[in-house]
Amino acid sequence: MAASVGSDTPLDPGSPSSRSLDDPAYREAVVDLLGAIGYGEISAFERLGEDAKLAPTLEDKVALGQMAAAQLEHVEPIRQRLVELGADPFAVMGTFRASFDAFHRHTAPADWYEGLVKAYVGDALADDFYREVAEQLDPATRDLVIATLEDTGHAEFAVERIRAGIADDPRLGGRLALWGRRLMGEALVQAQHVVAERDALSGLLAGGGDVPGLDLAEVGRMFTRLTERHAARMSEIGLDH
Amino acid sequence: MAASVGSDTPLDPGSPSSRSLDDPAYREAVVDLLGAIGYGEISAFERLGEDAKLAPTLEDKVALGQMAAAQLEHVEPIRQRLVELGADPFAVMGTFRASFDAFHRHTAPADWYEGLVKAYVGDALADDFYREVAEQLDPATRDLVIATLEDTGHAEFAVERIRAGIADDPRLGGRLALWGRRLMGEALVQAQHVVAERDALSGLLAGGGDVPGLDLAEVGRMFTRLTERHAARMSEIGLDH
Repeated sequence: MAASVGSDTPLDPGSPSSRSLDDPAYREAVVDLLGAIGYGEISAFERLGEDAKLAPTLEDKVALGQMAAAQLEHVEPIRQRLVELGADPFAVMGTFRASFDAFHRHTAPADWYEGLVKAYVGDALADDFYREVAEQLDPATRDLVIATLEDTGHAEFAVERIRAGIADDPRLGGRLALWGRRLMGEALVQAQHVVAERDALSGLLAGGGDVPGLDLAEVGRMFTRLTERHAARMSEIGLDH
Repeated sequence: MAASVGSDTPLDPGSPSSRSLDDPAYREAVVDLLGAIGYGEISAFERLGEDAKLAPTLEDKVALGQMAAAQLEHVEPIRQRLVELGADPFAVMGTFRASFDAFHRHTAPADWYEGLVKAYVGDALADDFYREVAEQLDPATRDLVIATLEDTGHAEFAVERIRAGIADDPRLGGRLALWGRRLMGEALVQAQHVVAERDALSGLLAGGGDVPGLDLAEVGRMFTRLTERHAARMSEIGLDH
């Protein structure tokens, strides 16, 4: 999935490694992508911090708080890179506020377990999505994006707690399985909004103008892969009802 | 202020360096102290995260969020040390919940600037207090306590923002000066509650039983030093009304 097809004007699409930030359309796409990742981390920090209030124990609260703090640590390298690219970092991040805030507003957890599933699913989905996108990027940007995905070991505790909760109360599994599907649905809706509103980003993903990228069929396959991995994770933690 | 005086039974008080965790009273005092620091960090994380919602810009929100995250990072080494000392770490931390939560309940910021002053004052006061207490500790515990005080550089942004706010609206200075005094008063009240309820801790601070420590006059001088440093900081940021 290296080269672009399906664009009307595929001006030397080249391989991701040859992509240059001197190309204004590619540069705009990278700025948008980093802005989205940055605001995504900020909003994840806020929501996980909020959801930590639902924790039944101090230990659980600290564990979810640590997931929140880990998100925020990734903002600074993204901010720096946006400055290097000549962008106003917080202005760019702020343009993604509406979409991410809508996602969180539509997926406010009703209790601790819903919060845990959201933390786990959200983290893993973002991870999968950014890894897919990273393959379309020049090496320096790719390394930066991949670096923001590290340090997700905190999610292990979420899996443990969810499994233990379902073992205690099997009915919880059915409710959380529905919740997991709803989270995935909302994430897809908001991701589509973001991409539809951003010509440069959709160009990066689907190929368009002189930005090489995936063709639309490949974008469809990417979403299929994301959905399949989500389903596999849900199954792993006993939420495959 | 190395040796204890003023205790009725100063059984070989010794210097802080010679203090041993084999002494049950000293060990209990250390467990209490680490529990208080640990819960203090957790509650600071929670409150700063909450106060970050008042931020007027995304940049300010991230800066206060980073102060919050830095607090939480200090919890893990304290948890580990409590386990090494044979304590149930979150149970010990949880015993300080009422005092810290009361402090935060009585000092909920009404706006962004009150939140900033609280973040700055709280961070600096905790820093001063733990440095004073650290001088009474065995070297290993002292190093751990001092290490939790690092990484407070984030507070610089608070000072900048407060100064800029007062430059824009001089009346803000008068209100924040009163607020700073109230914060200091509440902190002293809660600190006294904590110490009064904990024989081991008050022994460590004031000397009592076979735990060497400061005498009561020295405790008084310590609180005077803390108050003076607080006043000097308030003056530095233009809040010496």
